[in-house]
Amino acid sequence: MMKFRRSERLIDMTNYLLEHPRQLVSLTFFADRYGSAKSSISEDLAIIKETFEQRGIGTLQTVPGAAGGVKYSVKVSDDEARPFISGLCEVIASPERLLPGGYLYMTDILGDPAIVQKAGRVFASAFADADIDVVMTVATKGIPLAYAVGAYLNVPVVIVRRDSRVTEGSTVSINYVSGSAKRIQTMVLSKRSLEEGSKVLIVDDFMKAGGTVNGMISMLEEFKAHVAGIAVLVEAEKAEERLVDEYLSLVQLADVDVKEKKINVTEGNYFRHKNG
Amino acid sequence: MMKFRRSERLIDMTNYLLEHPRQLVSLTFFADRYGSAKSSISEDLAIIKETFEQRGIGTLQTVPGAAGGVKYSVKVSDDEARPFISGLCEVIASPERLLPGGYLYMTDILGDPAIVQKAGRVFASAFADADIDVVMTVATKGIPLAYAVGAYLNVPVVIVRRDSRVTEGSTVSINYVSGSAKRIQTMVLSKRSLEEGSKVLIVDDFMKAGGTVNGMISMLEEFKAHVAGIAVLVEAEKAEERLVDEYLSLVQLADVDVKEKKINVTEGNYFRHKNG
Repeated sequence: MMKFRRSERLIDMTNYLLEHPRQLVSLTFFADRYGSAKSSISEDLAIIKETFEQRGIGTLQTVPGAAGGVKYSVKVSDDEARPFISGLCEVIASPERLLPGGYLYMTDILGDPAIVQKAGRVFASAFADADIDVVMTVATKGIPLAYAVGAYLNVPVVIVRRDSRVTEGSTVSINYVSGSAKRIQTMVLSKRSLEEGSKVLIVDDFMKAGGTVNGMISMLEEFKAHVAGIAVLVEAEKAEERLVDEYLSLVQLADVDVKEKKINVTEGNYFRHKNG
Repeated sequence: MMKFRRSERLIDMTNYLLEHPRQLVSLTFFADRYGSAKSSISEDLAIIKETFEQRGIGTLQTVPGAAGGVKYSVKVSDDEARPFISGLCEVIASPERLLPGGYLYMTDILGDPAIVQKAGRVFASAFADADIDVVMTVATKGIPLAYAVGAYLNVPVVIVRRDSRVTEGSTVSINYVSGSAKRIQTMVLSKRSLEEGSKVLIVDDFMKAGGTVNGMISMLEEFKAHVAGIAVLVEAEKAEERLVDEYLSLVQLADVDVKEKKINVTEGNYFRHKNG
Protein backbone atom coordinates (compact mmCIF):
# COMPACT_ATOMS: atom_id res chain seq x y z
CA MET A 1 0.00 0.00 0.00
CA MET A 2 1.05 3.53 -0.80
CA LYS A 3 2.30 5.56 2.14
CA PHE A 4 1.40 9.17 2.70
CA ARG A 5 3.50 11.89 4.22
CA ARG A 6 2.01 13.90 7.07
CA SER A 7 1.62 16.99 4.90
CA GLU A 8 -0.44 15.05 2.36
CA ARG A 9 -2.55 13.49 5.10
CA LEU A 10 -3.27 16.89 6.66
CA ILE A 11 -4.46 18.30 3.33
CA ASP A 12 -6.61 15.31 2.45
CA MET A 13 -8.06 14.95 5.97
CA THR A 14 -8.93 18.65 6.01
CA ASN A 15 -10.82 18.26 2.74
CA TYR A 16 -12.50 15.06 3.94
CA LEU A 17 -13.66 16.53 7.24
CA LEU A 18 -14.96 19.72 5.58
CA GLU A 19 -16.98 17.57 3.19
CA HIS A 20 -18.45 15.47 6.04
CA PRO A 21 -19.70 17.83 8.77
CA ARG A 22 -21.34 16.33 11.85
CA GLN A 23 -20.33 12.82 10.82
CA LEU A 24 -18.36 10.56 13.09
CA VAL A 25 -15.26 9.37 11.20
CA SER A 26 -13.33 6.55 12.84
CA LEU A 27 -9.56 6.65 13.28
CA THR A 28 -9.47 3.29 11.53
CA PHE A 29 -10.99 4.86 8.42
CA PHE A 30 -8.17 7.37 8.17
CA ALA A 31 -5.53 4.82 9.17
CA ASP A 32 -6.67 2.53 6.33
CA ARG A 33 -7.00 5.42 3.90
CA TYR A 34 -3.35 6.40 4.34
CA GLY A 35 -1.75 3.14 5.44
CA SER A 36 -0.69 4.87 8.67
CA ALA A 37 -0.66 3.93 12.33
CA LYS A 38 -3.57 5.18 14.42
CA SER A 39 -1.09 7.03 16.62
CA SER A 40 0.03 9.11 13.61
CA ILE A 41 -3.60 9.80 12.70
CA SER A 42 -4.23 10.97 16.27
CA GLU A 43 -1.34 13.38 16.01
CA ASP A 44 -2.62 14.65 12.64
CA LEU A 45 -6.07 15.25 14.12
CA ALA A 46 -4.61 17.17 17.05
CA ILE A 47 -2.89 19.54 14.60
CA ILE A 48 -6.07 19.90 12.52
CA LYS A 49 -8.17 20.50 15.63
CA GLU A 50 -5.84 23.23 16.82
CA THR A 51 -5.72 24.95 13.44
CA PHE A 52 -9.48 24.65 12.82
CA GLU A 53 -10.15 26.26 16.18
CA GLN A 54 -7.51 28.96 15.92
CA ARG A 55 -8.48 29.94 12.38
CA GLY A 56 -12.22 29.83 13.03
CA ILE A 57 -12.83 27.01 10.56
CA GLY A 58 -14.76 24.86 13.01
CA THR A 59 -14.46 22.45 15.90
CA LEU A 60 -13.25 18.86 16.04
CA GLN A 61 -14.81 16.68 18.67
CA THR A 62 -13.02 13.49 19.59
CA VAL A 63 -15.16 10.58 20.68
CA PRO A 64 -13.06 8.00 22.56
CA GLY A 65 -13.46 4.22 22.57
CA ALA A 66 -13.87 1.42 20.04
CA ALA A 67 -16.86 3.05 18.32
CA GLY A 68 -15.19 6.43 18.57
CA GLY A 69 -13.60 8.77 16.13
CA VAL A 70 -13.68 12.40 15.24
CA LYS A 71 -16.51 14.74 14.27
CA TYR A 72 -16.15 18.13 12.59
CA SER A 73 -18.74 20.85 13.14
CA VAL A 74 -19.00 24.27 11.58
CA LYS A 75 -18.21 27.03 14.06
CA VAL A 76 -18.28 30.67 13.09
CA SER A 77 -16.75 33.04 15.61
CA ASP A 78 -18.42 36.36 16.40
CA ASP A 79 -15.34 38.04 14.92
CA GLU A 80 -16.13 36.39 11.60
CA ALA A 81 -19.92 36.74 11.76
CA ARG A 82 -19.91 40.43 12.67
CA PRO A 83 -18.29 41.88 9.51
CA PHE A 84 -20.34 39.50 7.37
CA ILE A 85 -23.62 40.63 8.95
CA SER A 86 -22.74 44.31 8.86
CA GLY A 87 -21.68 43.93 5.22
CA LEU A 88 -25.05 42.34 4.52
CA CYS A 89 -26.83 45.25 6.25
CA GLU A 90 -24.93 47.70 4.07
CA VAL A 91 -25.77 45.87 0.85
CA ILE A 92 -29.46 45.65 1.79
CA ALA A 93 -29.64 49.34 2.74
CA SER A 94 -29.00 50.48 -0.85
CA PRO A 95 -31.93 52.71 -1.98
CA GLU A 96 -31.91 51.09 -5.44
CA ARG A 97 -33.47 48.05 -3.82
CA LEU A 98 -36.73 49.84 -3.16
CA LEU A 99 -39.60 48.48 -5.21
CA PRO A 100 -43.16 49.82 -5.53
CA GLY A 101 -45.16 49.08 -2.39
CA GLY A 102 -42.13 49.24 -0.09
CA TYR A 103 -40.86 45.80 -1.10
CA LEU A 104 -37.15 45.18 -1.38
CA TYR A 105 -35.29 43.64 -4.28
CA MET A 106 -33.06 40.95 -2.75
CA THR A 107 -32.84 38.53 -5.66
CA ASP A 108 -29.19 39.36 -6.38
CA ILE A 109 -28.19 38.77 -2.76
CA LEU A 110 -30.02 35.44 -2.64
CA GLY A 111 -28.48 34.62 -6.04
CA ASP A 112 -24.91 34.95 -4.80
CA PRO A 113 -23.73 31.49 -3.71
CA ALA A 114 -20.89 33.02 -1.65
CA ILE A 115 -23.33 35.06 0.48
CA VAL A 116 -25.80 32.22 0.76
CA GLN A 117 -23.11 29.75 1.81
CA LYS A 118 -21.71 32.12 4.39
CA ALA A 119 -25.17 32.80 5.83
CA GLY A 120 -25.71 29.04 5.87
CA ARG A 121 -22.43 28.60 7.78
CA VAL A 122 -23.46 31.23 10.33
CA PHE A 123 -26.84 29.58 10.99
CA ALA A 124 -25.36 26.07 11.00
CA SER A 125 -22.86 27.26 13.58
CA ALA A 126 -25.66 28.53 15.84
CA PHE A 127 -27.48 25.18 15.57
CA ALA A 128 -24.41 22.90 15.44
CA ASP A 129 -25.13 21.39 18.84
CA ALA A 130 -28.91 21.25 18.44
CA ASP A 131 -30.71 18.00 17.73
CA ILE A 132 -31.90 18.52 14.15
CA ASP A 133 -33.06 15.87 11.67
CA VAL A 134 -34.31 18.02 8.81
CA VAL A 135 -34.24 21.57 7.46
CA MET A 136 -37.57 22.86 6.11
CA THR A 137 -38.32 25.85 3.92
CA VAL A 138 -41.06 27.06 1.62
CA ALA A 139 -40.59 27.58 -2.12
CA THR A 140 -38.94 29.56 -3.66
CA LYS A 141 -36.62 32.19 -2.26
CA GLY A 142 -35.62 30.36 0.92
CA ILE A 143 -34.47 27.22 -0.89
CA PRO A 144 -30.77 28.09 -1.46
CA LEU A 145 -30.27 29.20 2.15
CA ALA A 146 -32.04 26.07 3.41
CA TYR A 147 -29.68 23.87 1.37
CA ALA A 148 -26.62 25.73 2.62
CA VAL A 149 -27.72 25.19 6.22
CA GLY A 150 -28.68 21.57 5.48
CA ALA A 151 -25.31 20.83 3.90
CA TYR A 152 -23.35 22.25 6.86
CA LEU A 153 -25.58 20.37 9.33
CA ASN A 154 -25.55 17.17 7.26
CA VAL A 155 -29.34 16.81 7.20
CA PRO A 156 -31.86 16.60 4.35
CA VAL A 157 -33.99 19.53 3.19
CA VAL A 158 -37.75 19.40 2.66
CA ILE A 159 -39.50 22.03 0.61
CA VAL A 160 -43.07 23.08 1.27
CA ARG A 161 -44.82 24.27 -1.88
CA ARG A 162 -47.64 26.66 -2.68
CA ASP A 163 -49.20 24.22 -5.11
CA SER A 164 -49.36 20.48 -5.46
CA ARG A 165 -47.36 18.79 -8.22
CA VAL A 166 -47.88 15.36 -9.68
CA THR A 167 -44.20 14.53 -9.07
CA GLU A 168 -44.67 14.90 -5.32
CA GLY A 169 -47.00 11.90 -4.90
CA SER A 170 -49.67 12.21 -2.19
CA THR A 171 -49.49 15.43 -0.24
CA VAL A 172 -50.77 17.04 2.93
CA SER A 173 -52.26 20.48 2.40
CA ILE A 174 -52.99 23.15 5.00
CA ASN A 175 -54.46 26.62 4.95
CA TYR A 176 -52.86 29.47 6.85
CA VAL A 177 -53.32 33.19 7.22
CA SER A 178 -50.50 35.29 5.87
CA GLY A 179 -49.74 37.70 8.69
CA SER A 180 -49.22 40.90 6.75
CA ALA A 181 -51.83 40.62 3.99
CA LYS A 182 -54.31 38.63 6.15
CA ARG A 183 -55.05 36.47 3.15
CA ILE A 184 -55.82 32.79 3.42
CA GLN A 185 -53.17 30.79 1.60
CA THR A 186 -52.37 27.16 1.04
CA MET A 187 -49.19 25.19 1.51
CA VAL A 188 -48.54 21.64 0.50
CA LEU A 189 -45.97 19.03 1.51
CA SER A 190 -45.34 15.60 0.06
CA LYS A 191 -46.38 12.87 2.50
CA ARG A 192 -43.22 10.91 1.92
CA SER A 193 -40.90 13.77 2.65
CA LEU A 194 -41.10 14.01 6.45
CA GLU A 195 -41.07 11.30 9.10
CA GLU A 196 -43.17 11.44 12.23
CA GLY A 197 -41.27 12.84 15.20
CA SER A 198 -38.66 14.65 13.09
CA LYS A 199 -36.92 17.61 14.70
CA VAL A 200 -37.08 20.38 12.16
CA LEU A 201 -35.13 23.60 11.67
CA ILE A 202 -37.28 26.08 9.73
CA VAL A 203 -35.27 28.36 7.41
CA ASP A 204 -36.54 31.26 5.32
CA ASP A 205 -35.18 34.32 3.59
CA PHE A 206 -37.63 36.88 4.94
CA MET A 207 -40.12 37.17 7.79
CA LYS A 208 -42.61 39.96 8.23
CA ALA A 209 -45.44 39.09 10.62
CA GLY A 210 -44.42 35.46 10.52
CA GLY A 211 -47.50 34.04 8.78
CA THR A 212 -45.50 31.79 6.48
CA VAL A 213 -43.28 30.49 9.26
CA ASN A 214 -46.40 29.95 11.34
CA GLY A 215 -47.90 28.01 8.44
CA MET A 216 -44.83 25.76 8.40
CA ILE A 217 -45.26 25.18 12.14
CA SER A 218 -48.88 24.10 11.52
CA MET A 219 -47.62 21.81 8.78
CA LEU A 220 -45.18 20.22 11.24
CA GLU A 221 -48.09 19.50 13.57
CA GLU A 222 -49.85 17.64 10.75
CA PHE A 223 -46.76 15.45 10.45
CA LYS A 224 -46.38 15.11 14.24
CA ALA A 225 -42.97 16.69 13.82
CA HIS A 226 -41.30 19.24 16.12
CA VAL A 227 -39.81 22.71 15.66
CA ALA A 228 -36.13 22.59 16.62
CA GLY A 229 -35.44 26.18 15.60
CA ILE A 230 -36.31 29.01 13.24
CA ALA A 231 -33.74 30.93 11.20
CA VAL A 232 -34.52 33.86 8.89
CA LEU A 233 -32.04 35.92 6.93
CA VAL A 234 -33.99 39.19 7.15
CA GLU A 235 -36.81 40.13 9.52
CA ALA A 236 -38.97 43.20 9.19
CA GLU A 237 -39.43 45.22 12.33
CA LYS A 238 -42.73 46.76 13.33
CA ALA A 239 -44.77 43.72 12.54
CA GLU A 240 -47.67 44.75 14.80
CA GLU A 241 -48.57 41.25 15.81
CA ARG A 242 -45.66 38.93 15.37
CA LEU A 243 -46.99 35.39 15.10
CA VAL A 244 -43.68 33.77 15.91
CA ASP A 245 -41.67 34.31 19.10
CA GLU A 246 -38.40 32.51 19.01
CA TYR A 247 -36.27 32.83 15.93
CA LEU A 248 -32.80 33.85 14.84
CA SER A 249 -32.29 36.63 12.29
CA LEU A 250 -29.14 38.09 10.76
CA VAL A 251 -30.61 41.36 9.52
CA GLN A 252 -33.49 43.55 10.62
CA LEU A 253 -35.31 45.97 8.35
CA ALA A 254 -36.07 48.76 10.79
CA ASP A 255 -37.74 51.16 8.43
CA VAL A 256 -38.53 51.49 4.75
CA ASP A 257 -39.35 55.04 3.67
CA VAL A 258 -40.57 54.83 0.07
CA LYS A 259 -40.97 58.60 -0.27
CA GLU A 260 -37.48 59.48 0.92
CA LYS A 261 -36.01 56.38 -0.72
CA LYS A 262 -34.39 55.41 2.54
CA ILE A 263 -34.00 51.93 3.97
CA ASN A 264 -33.01 51.64 7.59
CA VAL A 265 -31.26 48.36 8.28
CA THR A 266 -29.76 47.02 11.51
CA GLU A 267 -28.27 43.80 12.80
CA GLY A 268 -30.81 41.07 13.52
CA ASN A 269 -31.04 39.26 16.85
CA TYR A 270 -28.33 36.70 16.00
CA PHE A 271 -25.75 37.79 18.57
CA ARG A 272 -28.35 38.25 21.30
CA HIS A 273 -30.26 35.01 20.74
CA LYS A 274 -27.91 32.44 19.28
CA ASN A 275 -27.15 30.84 22.62
CA GLY A 276 -30.67 31.07 23.96
CA MET B 1 3.11 39.01 13.89
CA MET B 2 2.25 35.45 14.75
CA LYS B 3 4.16 32.83 12.78
CA PHE B 4 2.56 29.68 11.44
CA ARG B 5 4.08 26.27 11.10
CA ARG B 6 3.88 24.60 7.70
CA SER B 7 1.32 22.08 8.93
CA GLU B 8 -0.99 24.87 10.07
CA ARG B 9 -0.53 26.74 6.82
CA LEU B 10 -1.36 23.64 4.76
CA ILE B 11 -4.61 23.09 6.67
CA ASP B 12 -5.71 26.71 6.50
CA MET B 13 -4.71 27.15 2.85
CA THR B 14 -6.60 23.99 1.91
CA ASN B 15 -9.71 25.36 3.59
CA TYR B 16 -9.23 28.77 2.01
CA LEU B 17 -8.76 27.44 -1.53
CA LEU B 18 -11.75 25.08 -1.23
CA GLU B 19 -13.90 28.03 -0.18
CA HIS B 20 -12.70 30.18 -3.10
CA PRO B 21 -12.90 28.12 -6.30
CA ARG B 22 -11.89 29.73 -9.60
CA GLN B 23 -10.54 32.79 -7.81
CA LEU B 24 -6.99 33.98 -8.33
CA VAL B 25 -5.32 34.23 -4.91
CA SER B 26 -1.99 36.04 -4.86
CA LEU B 27 1.06 34.62 -3.11
CA THR B 28 1.30 37.93 -1.26
CA PHE B 29 -2.12 37.32 0.25
CA PHE B 30 -1.00 34.03 1.78
CA ALA B 31 2.45 35.44 2.72
CA ASP B 32 0.75 38.26 4.66
CA ARG B 33 -1.84 35.94 6.17
CA TYR B 34 0.84 33.74 7.73
CA GLY B 35 3.77 36.13 8.05
CA SER B 36 5.78 33.79 5.84
CA ALA B 37 8.19 34.25 2.94
CA LYS B 38 6.73 33.83 -0.54
CA SER B 39 9.20 31.02 -1.16
CA SER B 40 7.66 29.04 1.71
CA ILE B 41 4.18 29.71 0.36
CA SER B 42 5.30 28.45 -3.05
CA GLU B 43 6.53 25.24 -1.48
CA ASP B 44 3.25 24.87 0.44
CA LEU B 45 1.27 25.33 -2.76
CA ALA B 46 3.37 22.71 -4.56
CA ILE B 47 2.49 20.20 -1.85
CA ILE B 48 -1.20 21.15 -1.96
CA LYS B 49 -1.27 20.94 -5.75
CA GLU B 50 0.26 17.48 -5.73
CA THR B 51 -2.13 16.22 -3.06
CA PHE B 52 -5.21 17.82 -4.63
CA GLU B 53 -4.40 16.19 -7.94
CA GLN B 54 -3.46 12.79 -6.53
CA ARG B 55 -6.52 12.58 -4.28
CA GLY B 56 -8.93 13.88 -6.91
CA ILE B 57 -9.82 17.01 -4.91
CA GLY B 58 -9.17 19.41 -7.77
CA THR B 59 -6.51 21.23 -9.73
CA LEU B 60 -4.29 24.18 -8.75
CA GLN B 61 -3.27 26.45 -11.56
CA THR B 62 -0.31 28.73 -10.97
CA VAL B 63 -0.34 32.08 -12.75
CA PRO B 64 3.18 33.58 -12.85
CA GLY B 65 4.15 37.25 -12.69
CA ALA B 66 3.37 40.25 -10.51
CA ALA B 67 -0.40 39.93 -10.96
CA GLY B 68 -0.15 36.18 -10.61
CA GLY B 69 -1.11 33.71 -7.95
CA VAL B 70 -2.90 30.44 -7.65
CA LYS B 71 -6.35 29.30 -8.70
CA TYR B 72 -8.17 26.22 -7.49
CA SER B 73 -10.72 24.47 -9.70
CA VAL B 74 -12.96 21.54 -8.92
CA LYS B 75 -11.92 18.43 -10.80
CA VAL B 76 -13.75 15.15 -10.46
CA SER B 77 -11.97 12.15 -11.92
CA ASP B 78 -13.91 9.52 -13.87
CA ASP B 79 -12.96 7.07 -11.12
CA GLU B 80 -14.86 9.22 -8.67
CA ALA B 81 -17.77 10.16 -10.97
CA ARG B 82 -18.49 6.60 -12.10
CA PRO B 83 -19.53 5.05 -8.75
CA PHE B 84 -21.49 8.20 -7.90
CA ILE B 85 -23.46 8.09 -11.14
CA SER B 86 -24.08 4.36 -10.99
CA GLY B 87 -25.20 4.74 -7.36
CA LEU B 88 -27.60 7.44 -8.49
CA CYS B 89 -28.95 5.14 -11.22
CA GLU B 90 -29.56 2.43 -8.65
CA VAL B 91 -31.40 4.76 -6.27
CA ILE B 92 -33.58 6.11 -9.08
CA ALA B 93 -34.43 2.63 -10.39
CA SER B 94 -36.33 1.70 -7.22
CA PRO B 95 -39.92 0.75 -8.18
CA GLU B 96 -41.32 2.61 -5.16
CA ARG B 97 -40.56 5.82 -7.03
CA LEU B 98 -43.27 5.17 -9.59
CA LEU B 99 -46.14 7.63 -9.37
CA PRO B 100 -49.46 7.63 -11.24
CA GLY B 101 -48.95 8.64 -14.88
CA GLY B 102 -45.42 7.23 -15.07
CA TYR B 103 -43.87 10.13 -13.14
CA LEU B 104 -41.03 9.48 -10.76
CA TYR B 105 -40.71 10.60 -7.15
CA MET B 106 -37.27 12.22 -6.87
CA THR B 107 -37.91 14.72 -4.09
CA ASP B 108 -35.84 12.80 -1.54
CA ILE B 109 -32.86 12.62 -3.89
CA LEU B 110 -33.04 16.33 -4.64
CA GLY B 111 -33.52 16.96 -0.92
CA ASP B 112 -30.23 15.32 0.04
CA PRO B 113 -27.55 18.02 0.17
CA ALA B 114 -24.77 15.42 -0.08
CA ILE B 115 -26.12 14.10 -3.41
CA VAL B 116 -26.88 17.57 -4.72
CA GLN B 117 -23.41 18.85 -3.81
CA LYS B 118 -21.70 15.88 -5.40
CA ALA B 119 -23.73 16.27 -8.61
CA GLY B 120 -22.85 19.96 -8.52
CA ARG B 121 -19.16 19.05 -8.21
CA VAL B 122 -19.38 16.68 -11.17
CA PHE B 123 -21.01 19.29 -13.42
CA ALA B 124 -18.70 22.07 -12.21
CA SER B 125 -15.76 19.84 -13.06
CA ALA B 126 -17.04 19.36 -16.62
CA PHE B 127 -17.45 23.13 -17.04
CA ALA B 128 -14.43 24.24 -14.97
CA ASP B 129 -12.54 25.51 -18.02
CA ALA B 130 -15.58 26.99 -19.80
CA ASP B 131 -16.25 30.70 -19.88
CA ILE B 132 -19.34 30.99 -17.66
CA ASP B 133 -20.71 34.13 -15.98
CA VAL B 134 -23.99 32.85 -14.57
CA VAL B 135 -25.89 29.65 -13.82
CA MET B 136 -29.58 29.71 -14.71
CA THR B 137 -32.40 27.40 -13.65
CA VAL B 138 -36.17 27.43 -13.45
CA ALA B 139 -38.10 27.19 -10.17
CA THR B 140 -38.39 24.95 -8.19
CA LYS B 141 -36.73 21.57 -8.33
CA GLY B 142 -33.57 22.60 -10.17
CA ILE B 143 -32.66 25.34 -7.69
CA PRO B 144 -30.47 23.35 -5.25
CA LEU B 145 -28.45 21.75 -8.05
CA ALA B 146 -28.01 25.13 -9.76
CA TYR B 147 -26.63 26.62 -6.51
CA ALA B 148 -24.26 23.71 -6.01
CA VAL B 149 -22.88 24.20 -9.52
CA GLY B 150 -22.79 27.98 -9.08
CA ALA B 151 -20.88 27.72 -5.79
CA TYR B 152 -18.22 25.42 -7.27
CA LEU B 153 -17.88 27.66 -10.34
CA ASN B 154 -17.93 30.87 -8.29
CA VAL B 155 -20.72 32.48 -10.33
CA PRO B 156 -24.17 33.82 -9.37
CA VAL B 157 -27.41 31.93 -9.95
CA VAL B 158 -30.51 33.38 -11.61
CA ILE B 159 -33.88 31.73 -11.20
CA VAL B 160 -36.56 31.88 -13.86
CA ARG B 161 -40.04 31.68 -12.38
CA ARG B 162 -43.42 30.47 -13.58
CA ASP B 163 -45.16 33.54 -12.19
CA SER B 164 -44.22 37.12 -11.58
CA ARG B 165 -43.67 38.34 -8.02
CA VAL B 166 -43.70 41.88 -6.73
CA THR B 167 -40.31 41.33 -5.09
CA GLU B 168 -38.69 40.76 -8.47
CA GLY B 169 -39.21 44.30 -9.78
CA SER B 170 -39.82 44.62 -13.53
CA THR B 171 -39.68 41.35 -15.38
CA VAL B 172 -39.42 39.93 -18.88
CA SER B 173 -42.01 37.29 -19.66
CA ILE B 174 -41.98 34.77 -22.50
CA ASN B 175 -44.28 32.01 -23.68
CA TYR B 176 -42.96 28.62 -24.65
CA VAL B 177 -44.36 25.25 -25.61
CA SER B 178 -43.69 22.46 -23.14
CA GLY B 179 -42.32 19.66 -25.30
CA SER B 180 -44.11 16.69 -23.79
CA ALA B 181 -47.55 18.12 -22.98
CA LYS B 182 -47.55 20.58 -25.90
CA ARG B 183 -49.05 23.17 -23.61
CA ILE B 184 -48.24 26.86 -23.86
CA GLN B 185 -46.59 28.03 -20.66
CA THR B 186 -45.09 31.22 -19.35
CA MET B 187 -41.76 31.94 -17.72
CA VAL B 188 -40.64 35.16 -16.14
CA LEU B 189 -37.25 36.63 -15.25
CA SER B 190 -36.43 39.77 -13.33
CA LYS B 191 -34.91 42.40 -15.62
CA ARG B 192 -32.17 43.25 -13.16
CA SER B 193 -31.00 39.70 -12.77
CA LEU B 194 -29.10 39.16 -16.03
CA GLU B 195 -26.65 41.39 -17.88
CA GLU B 196 -26.54 41.64 -21.65
CA GLY B 197 -23.91 39.37 -23.17
CA SER B 198 -23.74 37.02 -20.17
CA LYS B 199 -22.52 33.49 -20.84
CA VAL B 200 -24.99 31.22 -19.13
CA LEU B 201 -24.88 27.61 -17.97
CA ILE B 202 -28.43 26.21 -17.86
CA VAL B 203 -28.99 23.67 -15.07
CA ASP B 204 -32.09 21.60 -14.40
CA ASP B 205 -33.08 18.47 -12.54
CA PHE B 206 -35.03 16.76 -15.31
CA MET B 207 -35.39 17.01 -19.08
CA LYS B 208 -37.97 15.19 -21.15
CA ALA B 209 -38.48 16.68 -24.61
CA GLY B 210 -36.54 19.76 -23.55
CA GLY B 211 -39.36 22.32 -23.70
CA THR B 212 -38.41 23.99 -20.45
CA VAL B 213 -34.71 24.16 -21.34
CA ASN B 214 -35.71 25.50 -24.74
CA GLY B 215 -37.84 28.13 -22.99
CA MET B 216 -34.78 29.21 -20.99
CA ILE B 217 -32.81 29.49 -24.22
CA SER B 218 -35.52 31.80 -25.64
CA MET B 219 -35.35 33.81 -22.44
CA LEU B 220 -31.58 34.21 -22.91
CA GLU B 221 -32.23 35.61 -26.38
CA GLU B 222 -34.51 38.25 -24.86
CA PHE B 223 -31.61 39.30 -22.64
CA LYS B 224 -29.06 39.08 -25.50
CA ALA B 225 -27.26 36.48 -23.40
CA HIS B 226 -25.59 33.27 -24.62
CA VAL B 227 -25.88 29.59 -23.78
CA ALA B 228 -22.52 28.37 -22.50
CA GLY B 229 -23.77 24.88 -21.67
CA ILE B 230 -26.71 22.78 -20.52
CA ALA B 231 -26.56 20.33 -17.60
CA VAL B 232 -29.43 18.11 -16.48
CA LEU B 233 -29.37 15.55 -13.69
CA VAL B 234 -31.81 13.13 -15.33
CA GLU B 235 -32.93 12.94 -18.96
CA ALA B 236 -35.79 10.84 -20.24
CA GLU B 237 -35.04 8.76 -23.30
CA LYS B 238 -37.48 8.32 -26.14
CA ALA B 239 -38.42 11.94 -26.33
CA GLU B 240 -39.66 11.68 -29.91
CA GLU B 241 -38.63 15.17 -30.87
CA ARG B 242 -35.90 16.42 -28.61
CA LEU B 243 -35.88 20.20 -28.75
CA VAL B 244 -32.36 20.52 -27.38
CA ASP B 245 -29.26 19.00 -28.92
CA GLU B 246 -26.21 19.59 -26.81
CA TYR B 247 -26.45 18.92 -23.11
CA LEU B 248 -24.79 16.92 -20.38
CA SER B 249 -26.77 14.41 -18.30
CA LEU B 250 -25.74 12.14 -15.44
CA VAL B 251 -28.65 9.70 -15.59
CA GLN B 252 -30.95 8.51 -18.37
CA LEU B 253 -34.42 7.11 -17.79
CA ALA B 254 -34.56 4.51 -20.51
CA ASP B 255 -37.97 3.07 -19.80
CA VAL B 256 -40.73 3.40 -17.27
CA ASP B 257 -43.17 0.49 -17.23
CA VAL B 258 -46.03 1.45 -14.96
CA LYS B 259 -47.81 -1.90 -15.31
CA GLU B 260 -44.82 -4.03 -14.45
CA LYS B 261 -43.56 -1.46 -11.93
CA LYS B 262 -40.17 -1.43 -13.58
CA ILE B 263 -37.90 1.55 -14.15
CA ASN B 264 -35.01 1.11 -16.52
CA VAL B 265 -32.21 3.51 -15.73
CA THR B 266 -28.80 3.91 -17.38
CA GLU B 267 -25.86 6.27 -17.26
CA GLY B 268 -26.46 9.62 -18.98
CA ASN B 269 -24.15 11.03 -21.64
CA TYR B 270 -21.71 12.60 -19.12
CA PHE B 271 -18.69 10.43 -19.91
CA ARG B 272 -19.26 10.60 -23.67
CA HIS B 273 -19.95 14.32 -23.94
CA LYS B 274 -18.13 16.10 -21.12
CA ASN B 275 -15.14 16.97 -23.27
CA GLY B 276 -17.12 17.82 -26.35
